[in-house]
Parts: sequence; structure tokens; C-alpha cells
Amino acid sequence: MKAGVIGATGYAGAELVRLLSGHSHVDELILSSVSFEGGRIEEVYPNFTGLISAPLVKAEAVVSEADVVFSALPHGVGEQFAKICVDKGTPFVDLSADFRFGEDEAAFKKWYGKDYVYPELRKYSIYGLPELNRKKIRDWKPVIIGNPGCYPTGASLGCFPALAKGLAAGTIIVDAASGISGGGREPSRQFHYPECADSAAPYKIGSHRHTPEIARNFAAMASVEGRNSPPVVFTPHLVPMNRGILSTIYIPLAAEYAGAEYNEEQISKFRSLYADFYKDEPFVRVLPQGVIAAANRVRGSNYCDISVHTDHSGSVLIVVSAIDNMVKGAAGQAIQNMNLIFGFEEKTALESIPALF
Amino acid sequence: MKAGVIGATGYAGAELVRLLSGHSHVDELILSSVSFEGGRIEEVYPNFTGLISAPLVKAEAVVSEADVVFSALPHGVGEQFAKICVDKGTPFVDLSADFRFGEDEAAFKKWYGKDYVYPELRKYSIYGLPELNRKKIRDWKPVIIGNPGCYPTGASLGCFPALAKGLAAGTIIVDAASGISGGGREPSRQFHYPECADSAAPYKIGSHRHTPEIARNFAAMASVEGRNSPPVVFTPHLVPMNRGILSTIYIPLAAEYAGAEYNEEQISKFRSLYADFYKDEPFVRVLPQGVIAAANRVRGSNYCDISVHTDHSGSVLIVVSAIDNMVKGAAGQAIQNMNLIFGFEEKTALESIPALF
Amino acid sequence: MKAGVIGATGYAGAELVRLLSGHSHVDELILSSVSFEGGRIEEVYPNFTGLISAPLVKAEAVVSEADVVFSALPHGVGEQFAKICVDKGTPFVDLSADFRFGEDEAAFKKWYGKDYVYPELRKYSIYGLPELNRKKIRDWKPVIIGNPGCYPTGASLGCFPALAKGLAAGTIIVDAASGISGGGREPSRQFHYPECADSAAPYKIGSHRHTPEIARNFAAMASVEGRNSPPVVFTPHLVPMNRGILSTIYIPLAAEYAGAEYNEEQISKFRSLYADFYKDEPFVRVLPQGVIAAANRVRGSNYCDISVHTDHSGSVLIVVSAIDNMVKGAAGQAIQNMNLIFGFEEKTALESIPALF
Amino acid sequence: MKAGVIGATGYAGAELVRLLSGHSHVDELILSSVSFEGGRIEEVYPNFTGLISAPLVKAEAVVSEADVVFSALPHGVGEQFAKICVDKGTPFVDLSADFRFGEDEAAFKKWYGKDYVYPELRKYSIYGLPELNRKKIRDWKPVIIGNPGCYPTGASLGCFPALAKGLAAGTIIVDAASGISGGGREPSRQFHYPECADSAAPYKIGSHRHTPEIARNFAAMASVEGRNSPPVVFTPHLVPMNRGILSTIYIPLAAEYAGAEYNEEQISKFRSLYADFYKDEPFVRVLPQGVIAAANRVRGSNYCDISVHTDHSGSVLIVVSAIDNMVKGAAGQAIQNMNLIFGFEEKTALESIPALF
Repeated sequence: MKAGVIGATGYAGAELVRLLSGHSHVDELILSSVSFEGGRIEEVYPNFTGLISAPLVKAEAVVSEADVVFSALPHGVGEQFAKICVDKGTPFVDLSADFRFGEDEAAFKKWYGKDYVYPELRKYSIYGLPELNRKKIRDWKPVIIGNPGCYPTGASLGCFPALAKGLAAGTIIVDAASGISGGGREPSRQFHYPECADSAAPYKIGSHRHTPEIARNFAAMASVEGRNSPPVVFTPHLVPMNRGILSTIYIPLAAEYAGAEYNEEQISKFRSLYADFYKDEPFVRVLPQGVIAAANRVRGSNYCDISVHTDHSGSVLIVVSAIDNMVKGAAGQAIQNMNLIFGFEEKTALESIPALF
Repeated sequence: MKAGVIGATGYAGAELVRLLSGHSHVDELILSSVSFEGGRIEEVYPNFTGLISAPLVKAEAVVSEADVVFSALPHGVGEQFAKICVDKGTPFVDLSADFRFGEDEAAFKKWYGKDYVYPELRKYSIYGLPELNRKKIRDWKPVIIGNPGCYPTGASLGCFPALAKGLAAGTIIVDAASGISGGGREPSRQFHYPECADSAAPYKIGSHRHTPEIARNFAAMASVEGRNSPPVVFTPHLVPMNRGILSTIYIPLAAEYAGAEYNEEQISKFRSLYADFYKDEPFVRVLPQGVIAAANRVRGSNYCDISVHTDHSGSVLIVVSAIDNMVKGAAGQAIQNMNLIFGFEEKTALESIPALF
Repeated sequence: MKAGVIGATGYAGAELVRLLSGHSHVDELILSSVSFEGGRIEEVYPNFTGLISAPLVKAEAVVSEADVVFSALPHGVGEQFAKICVDKGTPFVDLSADFRFGEDEAAFKKWYGKDYVYPELRKYSIYGLPELNRKKIRDWKPVIIGNPGCYPTGASLGCFPALAKGLAAGTIIVDAASGISGGGREPSRQFHYPECADSAAPYKIGSHRHTPEIARNFAAMASVEGRNSPPVVFTPHLVPMNRGILSTIYIPLAAEYAGAEYNEEQISKFRSLYADFYKDEPFVRVLPQGVIAAANRVRGSNYCDISVHTDHSGSVLIVVSAIDNMVKGAAGQAIQNMNLIFGFEEKTALESIPALF
Repeated sequence: MKAGVIGATGYAGAELVRLLSGHSHVDELILSSVSFEGGRIEEVYPNFTGLISAPLVKAEAVVSEADVVFSALPHGVGEQFAKICVDKGTPFVDLSADFRFGEDEAAFKKWYGKDYVYPELRKYSIYGLPELNRKKIRDWKPVIIGNPGCYPTGASLGCFPALAKGLAAGTIIVDAASGISGGGREPSRQFHYPECADSAAPYKIGSHRHTPEIARNFAAMASVEGRNSPPVVFTPHLVPMNRGILSTIYIPLAAEYAGAEYNEEQISKFRSLYADFYKDEPFVRVLPQGVIAAANRVRGSNYCDISVHTDHSGSVLIVVSAIDNMVKGAAGQAIQNMNLIFGFEEKTALESIPALF
């Protein structure tokens, strides 16, 4: 089949290109780029020299020819292509925020400052977090996938078991750190090497757009068992690494789960609960007790590592999750969604085993 | 005067040497090292070549000759030198944890697994956080300084105004990241470049020894106005930077301070409260609203930068503090204490202005 | 087939494990480790959690059961296992220097300070640089492969065309930089994060053991056309990156090739000569004119990128080569050798396309 | 006195501001910025918060009020201010290339593509490398200083003794690596964190503008003893560090100095020659034999570290020099020149001792 990528020369687009070029069901890549139209992907990304030489065409050509379309455009500019795909029956996997909020246009408008262009498209769209919506992603046709944000993926996977089982009894704090590639390919002062290397700092405190997506996911999982989700506080940080989202999540324990003091047995129970919850998930690894999730150990892979802990008093569950922001946080998850839509083996093109470094 | 450093070849010791060599009241450095005894400091640290050539002698010689003694030994091995100093009336600034807990030997024993060697020394010791104990540090004679830990310094300065003014109404979460130098000079797998570069991860979750020191400081500040301190949860992280402690602190606001939604006026009030609280402090910089504290902006200096924020709902105060772990978190603060003890201008040898990188 | 790795828990060993686990002809991994015998590889490398769980056995068991044996032991300790393999007819790919010098024991002794243990094994060994010895590697049986050093691989591939065509007319200078993983997994001061991060420096100037291997390879290639190779000067550097060997190579041009001044036509001719020389090589990429080889663009892959330049006067050919020290510089090349020995497609398990970062 | 900085918000300008604020003869800073005119320096550089709050005015005001003017503008735009300074008799220290080539306008035009604006100003200008021109810098009035480039400073100091003593007998190769701050404050793809972190690569091979400045300096030093300088080849690299220029320099030895093989006595003689040559220089440190110059060991200081070696054959002298590109390579050297002009102690404001990291 032919796989198309709109916006192929941004970082998420290029990662899609790299991963799709190893997909056993993909015969041809059709790539578009506004900035580099007329060139070839290997000219923009010399790491692809001699290996991926697809020309860069117009987005319209991608939509017209491809059997599945991935859009790595910014939010607010890709709906026109989604519309064409829906009309043609071509699956459309959108890596922007445009389809993450479904019918809740108010939430989108509040945080992203824009109206939906074609509101009616949301009846064809589904939020593409397989660990939440696998069955719907498989069954929904025709389909638009709102591929999840990087931070919401790490935060949600870190909290889902606690939310499903009702462990949480107060505001959940998601303190997360992203690699610099999360800021995209466009140079700016914030991501200029001397400004961010050898340092660490939060940004957009209290105002990051992934906040409502995280809260919505928490609520969705809690509601499966009829529960409400507690409030969430989310703070993103930049740390000097290329890839990765490392989330340290603080979940106040409901009284019946709180311990008197730090002890390994209590942690073991929580860990087992997490391991059991994710036992059939192909990409979630609940680490052995005593091993802490780290960003480098999932680098280049679609895995989400999770480790389970408590604070010293046994009253706060602390969960650490690690993903590669470019893979499980973007391109890899998009391909996971494609695999589900087409009924391919879910790990196709995503078998990469992380190296230590 | 003669300044002595016991354990001069560890990272904190070497930073003391560097800063003391620019101290206008210090004429001579007397340095000891078990590992390199008989050598010279510039042989161990080639960055000092031609600039600081003091020989490395025995700790006994330091204690015998110096007018002020800094100890950069690990906890549990330096009390013998403190005892001699007390007997001689020589100020002893200890960078280990031995004197941070004062009379509370139980806390020390619980977290550090050791008994005090000379318990009676605690009646001469004071916890050397100038922003908490400046007057006592100045007046206490003869004196042992329990120089604060790096994380407790950043956490305490980030929370003191909120605690003093009673803003906090629930568990305070201190999520902090340290530069790799915090692990000291001894090579180990954890700090081996390929294992920690280009990554981020927490460590010692629920069990880091700085936890009780942070809680004790919080309680001390809250008690000034007759309040109790809320519980604290502390999680340290390693990020790939050489220096720095970046603390992101979550303080649930008491009902009377909580807002309905994120708004700049609310933040402005909290920021003013912080700025006012620290207005006479020479080393605390409450940043202008809109500027977020970052680890690189205090690099090489004794400053603690603080920025004040809230979460999106206005119900959690979020404070970010940044220090250089080697300076305000260790050697610089030790010299600040020395300056207070001797009645020197508090910024002597600590005037360094941070570069951007 | 069963693939065995002796010394599987060092960095090169673990990279072999990672790559072999994706090899379509390998059904089972048999791994040994002295330090972690009795454990499992995923316990030592949590990045393998849930994906590679082979137990760590004794080296003897590896040699006894495997159909191909890779040895990632240090030089001087693995010959005993090579001997058993030769006797059994099992191919033995040695990543140490033990078999890189063939019959020239004097060179080995001079630079490595040891005698050969079983000198007679050299009549079964071949130097495993496919771009030099592909045919011999394919045909030689029974076989021991002396897998090339990382620096010699980058230096040799950067110089082979110039040497074969007689461009060089004076001392060749190989100025190379390695990622820190080149120092192996054992912690030491030199590779302790705060000592090598945010810096750059040469090491072992005039005395690095890869010098004679580089010189020997240069001579071997020059001799193909009956030429002598000029002398070589080699200086290795450490730079703060995890992976990679970046070699900048200065080749004084013979009078008939030297230009009068920097000009693109001259460079184009040299570039064409290089491209032509490597046109059938699966892993050497001669980059388009104007693109400079960089360490990050081959990361995680078995490619060697080469770019061709001159100095401003047109009298010195400057070649830049980039490899991943762990892949083409170690484990990947070892597997390439295995593929040649067994007649597998040469790129098997080595198809990974480098990401930009 | 009042010190002025034109272009104070670029990296070199900000470093001047930082260092000048600690200069004992400077009472006031007068700073200009086109981009941030009307603001204050601490708003542009939050690391200066509360410490340096000078307003950002027009360049004309700087020139009008200051007693010494530093220009950190790009080449080609600052001559107008130099002219005013010459007319007023105000020393003008120019960090651009405009005055580095003196009367040789042809060289400037060839490499920088521009004509001189006021060619006659060159009769007032001197090349500000104190180790070459100290006496002239002290005596020349009225004065314009052409402050040296970062690479030429490191290369020249590394070669001067060899050139003065006639050790060199063939093309000298300067292989140098710069920290990313050398690219300035303006964001671009090349210096975007994910593109340059965790990597290493040369750039502008055969065409970097510092080439003729290096060659000219070599010739100037060789000519002191009536010698000609050999040709020079210069290749710059980018490595992921914030600050530093690390130069590895290859000097083919004249027959009478070449050895038969690597030996410590030969190296010792060269090292002594270097140490002797620089014995009165306040900022050049010839390291003890066995210690190799490294970028991090001069970080934040005005020192140039030099270590002396040979290749394995004893026929090539290898010199390593390390400077901080922002200090000895730019702002520090500019202040060193100011100190010479005004007869201040040469180390004023430049006493900073480098930390290890």
C-alpha cells in the first residue's frame, strides 16, 4: 500500500517517514512539504541519504494517491485534507490537536484559540490512544485519528491503572520533562543550543495546552468504572536530551490504600496492580520493582516504561513513566493506530528494541 | 587569615578552594586529602595549574593551623575534627549531614544509619541556612555550622514565604532535578557518561536522605508564626547538566488564597509576597513575573532564583527555585556562613555574576 | 541458528545482543558474562526488559552450544575460546585486538604488551573489514574474524580510495573524535559525567593502540596497486556524545592532483572518485557535494558516511568520515562479517535507517 | 571611568558586560542594542537580574559618553563608530573582523566580501593579540584594537613558540573544535539543539574566514626571527559544548628536531621551549608534561592552556591549545587590551579561576 505523510519535513513527519519505510505493508511513500516542495526528503534529512529518496510533492497529491494519510501539520491547517480523506474513505491520522477533543469544540477553542473548520468531521474522528480506545480505533469507519499529544500519552499511561482502580483521592500532579526535539524543527531562542544545554527549567506553567487533554483522558478512564477523576496539575519542563518524555506523577492515595510508612510490600501491591492492568498491552512495560523508569531506556522505541513507587510516608503513589516523544509520543503511536485500523499486527514497524544509549 | 579545607579534592572541597582563593580576608589555604596526601591541589585539578598550588596535608594539620575549618568529608567521619575545633575555638563549617539535625539524633540515625560520635557537640552547632538562622549564625560562639544539603536549600528557599504566611493547606510536593556533579567525584555506573547523558530519571524515590531535612526546615519556618507545616513529598531527579538544582514545588493553597482560574493578578500577589519576604536577602532573587527560574542562570554563583506561579486552576501555588548545587548548595553557602561568623561582608568571595551559559 | 556472545554485558556485547535479536537467521541467543553469571541480560540492561531475557551463562557454554560465537572480551583473554571454535569448526568473531594483526605478532606485542597465547590460530584468522577483505571473509574456512577497531574502521574507509588511486603524497593525519561509549561500560574518572561533559580533549596523543592497525590497513590498500602508503599520524579525542567516530583526515595531494586554489570542480573530481570506488558497497555512503559528514547522521546504523573536501589552497585533500562506534565500529561490523561467512544477505539485521537525532 | 559596549545583547557583548561589571576601574556601563533599545540588559539576560540593570541606548550615545568603547557588532557595520572614537581620542576595541587585517584590505575583501568603509582608520588600528603585539598595544595612540578571532587566538598561541624557534618544516594543520556559543545568539538550524547535540562535525572546510588571520599571525611571528611561515590548513568543528575552542595542531618537525620514535625526553625539550617562551605571559599556561589541554579546564577564564606532544614517530610536533571562546577568544581578550591601553594591571577583571566544570 501507499502511505502518505503531509508535512514530512518536520521532526514528527521525518520520524514517520523513517518508521514507515520499514513497514512491511508499505510499498511506497508519498510525502509533502510546503518548505521543500520539489526537493527530495534525503536532501532535507541527509541521514536518509541513499535510503529514502521520495520526492516532496503537494499535500493535495498525498491525499489523492495515498491509501493512508498521516498529517504532521500544526493544528488548525489540516482539516481540509481530513475532509477529503473522509469523503474518499481514506484513513487520516492527524498528529495535531485538531481531532483530540472530538465534539468538545469549546475545550479546543479555549486552549487553542481557534474554531473547528469542519465541525462535522468529529463524528468520524476518534482519539487514538490504543490503551484507552483500541476497540473503537479498530472498528470505526471511515476514520480520522486524533493522535494523542506526547505529554498526555505519558501522563495517561502512568495514571490509568490508578484511576481505573480508584486509588486516587486528591489532586494528581504530573511533573514532566521533555527532550528538546519536542519543540520541533523550527529554530528559536528557547531551543538554541547555548540557551538550553547544560540546564533544566519548566515552561508554560499553568498554561500548557496539553493540560485539558490529560484531564479529559483521566476522566475517561475513571468513568469506565463509574468514577470521577480528581483534578490534575501539569507542569512541563525542558531538559537537555534529544528525545523523551519523563513524567513523575504524584497520586494522593485514598485512605484505604495509604500506608503508615514507606514499605516494599505496599509498593509491590501497587506494582502488581499496574502489571496486571497492562498485561496484554504490547507497548507498556511495567518495570520490575526497584527499577526506575528512565528516558534513555525507551529511546527510539514505541515502549512506555512505567515504574511504581510511593513517597516516604506511604500516602502518595508516585508513578514514573517514560516514552520517546517522537515515537510513542508521536510517529510510533500514529503507526500503531494505522496498524489497528488496517488489522495489521499491532507491532508492525514498531519492533525496535531500545539501546541503552 | 588561614582557611582550611578537609577533604579538599572532592568536588565540594575543590569548589571551596576555588572560591576561598578569591576571598579578600584569606591569605593562605591549608588543604587536606586522604587520597592525594603529599601532592598539590593543582595536580589533582589541572584547572588550577599555576594558580592554586597549595600542598595536600593531613586533616590534623588543617585543624591545627587554620583559623577557620571547612570539612567536605562524608557524613560520619569528621566529628573528631569538629571536636578539636570546638576545643580550640576555631569555627568549623561542616558540609556533611553530621550537624544538620542538631539535637535530633533519632532523625539522623533513622535516615543515615549512624549514631553521633560526640553527641555533646550539638550544643555548639547551628544549622547554617542564613535565610533561616542568620542571627544565630552571627552570634553563636564557639560554633559548628551544619551546612545545609543542596536539595534542602533549594526547597526551603522556595517554600519559606508560603510557609511563613500560611498559604499552604496540604501536602507540599518538591520535585527537584540535580546536575550530575551532585553525585560527587567518585566514578560509578550511575554517573558514567553514557548512562546518564541525553536522559532524565528520578532516583531514591521515597527514600532520599534530604527528605527529613526539608521537612524540618519547613516546620521551623512555619513555627515562626506559630503554624504547623504540611507534610512534604520529595523526589530527586538526575538530569544531564553539570551543575544546578532546579526545584518545582507544588503548594496547595488554603481556601482563602485559592483562585477560580489562572489569572495574572493572583500570581502577582504571590510574587509580591515573595519579593517582600526576601527583600533584604543578598542572595535570593525573586524574578520578575513572566520569567521562569532556570538552572543555567545561576550557574557558578551563590544566587537562588525564585519564580512564582500557579496551576491553571489557581488552586495550587507553583514555585520554581534554582541554585548552583556546588555554590549556594554547598561551598558558596559555607563561605556565606564563614562571612557571617567573622562579621565579614556577607557577599565576600561570592560576588560572581552568573553568565548565561 | 544459535548465536553466542561471550562478554555480553559490556557495551559492545549488549549492542551485539540487541542487533542479533533482530537477525532473521538467529533463533536463539546464548550469552555469557563473568560479572553477572546466573542473571539475565534484561536485569543488567533494563532497556531490554520484556524483550530479551536470555540467561547469562559461562563462556564455555556459549562456545559449546552456539553456531557462531562473538567474543566481546578484552584483548588477551579470549584465545582459548577461539581455539575451541576452530577445533569445532564454529566461526568465531573476535571484537578484541587479538586477531587484528594476523601473523605480525611483533606489532601486537609492541602495542599491546602481550604475546599471542596460541600463535598458530592466526593461520585461521582474517581481518574483518569487508571493504578490504570481503572475498577472503566469505571464502576462508574455518574462520576466526579479527573484527576491526572503531577508529581504524573510520580512518580506513576515509582513506582507501585516495590510497588505491595514489592521490596521497605525504604524511596523512587522522584527527578523530569518539563518543564516550567508546570507553566501555566500566566507570572511571575520564568518563565520569562532570569530567567529560561540556568539553572536548584529545587523549593518548602519539600512543593510541589503533595507530598500527590504521597504518597496516593503509599499507594493505596501497599495496593492491603496488604502491607504498605514506606515514600516518593519528590523534583520538573525546567529545561529549554517546556514540560515534568522526574522523577528519588530511591527505597531502601528489603534485599532479593538487590545485591552485579552492575550487568546486577539483572537489567534484575527488568526490566522484570516492563515489565510484564505493559504488557497490552496501554500507558506505559518499555524501553529495556540499554535505559534510556528521556523527549524528549515522547514529544507530551500520553506515559509514564520507564527505570529500580540500583545504583552501587545493593542495590537501580533506576527507570526513562518520560511523557509529558501536555499530560499524564494533557490533554491526561483526554481524556484517557473520553474514558474509554464512552467505546471508550482507545487510541482514543491519537495515536500520539512522534518525536525525 | 565609563565603559561602553555597542551591541551589548549578543553573546560577546553580554560577556563583556558581565566581565566589565567586575572591573575595578569601571564605574558605569553604557550599553547599546538595536534589537532591545529602550529595555534594560537584565531583561534580555535574566541571569543579570538585580545585578546589572543598565539601560539599552543607541550606539551613538555609547560613543558619545564612554571613555572606552567596545564594539560587538558584526563586521562591516561598526566603522562609523570607530571613526568618531578616533576623532574624540576614545579607545575603540572592535570584536569584529573589520580591523584585524590592518592595511591589507585585499585580504579582508577576499574573505569577507566587503570594502573598508574608512580605509584611513587602519593607520590608527592595531591587531590586539597581546602575546604578539603587547608593546604596540600599550604605546599606540589614538587607538583602535582589532580584537582577534577566537580560532586565530587558540591557533596562534599554540604555534608561536614553534614558529619563533624554527621548529616547523611543512604545512601546519590546525584542527579545531568550537563550543556552540561561537555561533552567536541568533537561532538557526545549525545551532538548534536537536541538530547539534550528541554529535560532532566539521563545517566550512577549506573556507572559514579565520584562515587568513591565522596564516597572517603565523607569518608575523616567524618573521620576528627572519623566518618564513609554512602554509597552514585550518578546519573548524562544532562539538556539543557551550564554551571553548580546542585546537589540535600538527607541526611537521624540521629534520634537526625530528626524533626516531616517540620518547618522553624529546617531548620534554619541546615543552620546556614552550614554557620558556611563555614564562612572562599572564594568561598562557603551558601544562606539565603528561597533562593534556582540555576545553573545560579554562571555562569562564581568560587562560590559554597549552600542552605539548609528538606523534608516535617523533617527527610531528602536536600541540593542543584550549581557550574559552567567549573570554580569551572574545570579551576577555578585549578587556586585556583595554587594560594594556590604559596601563591597568593586565589581569584586572580577568582573575577568574576556572572551575573543573
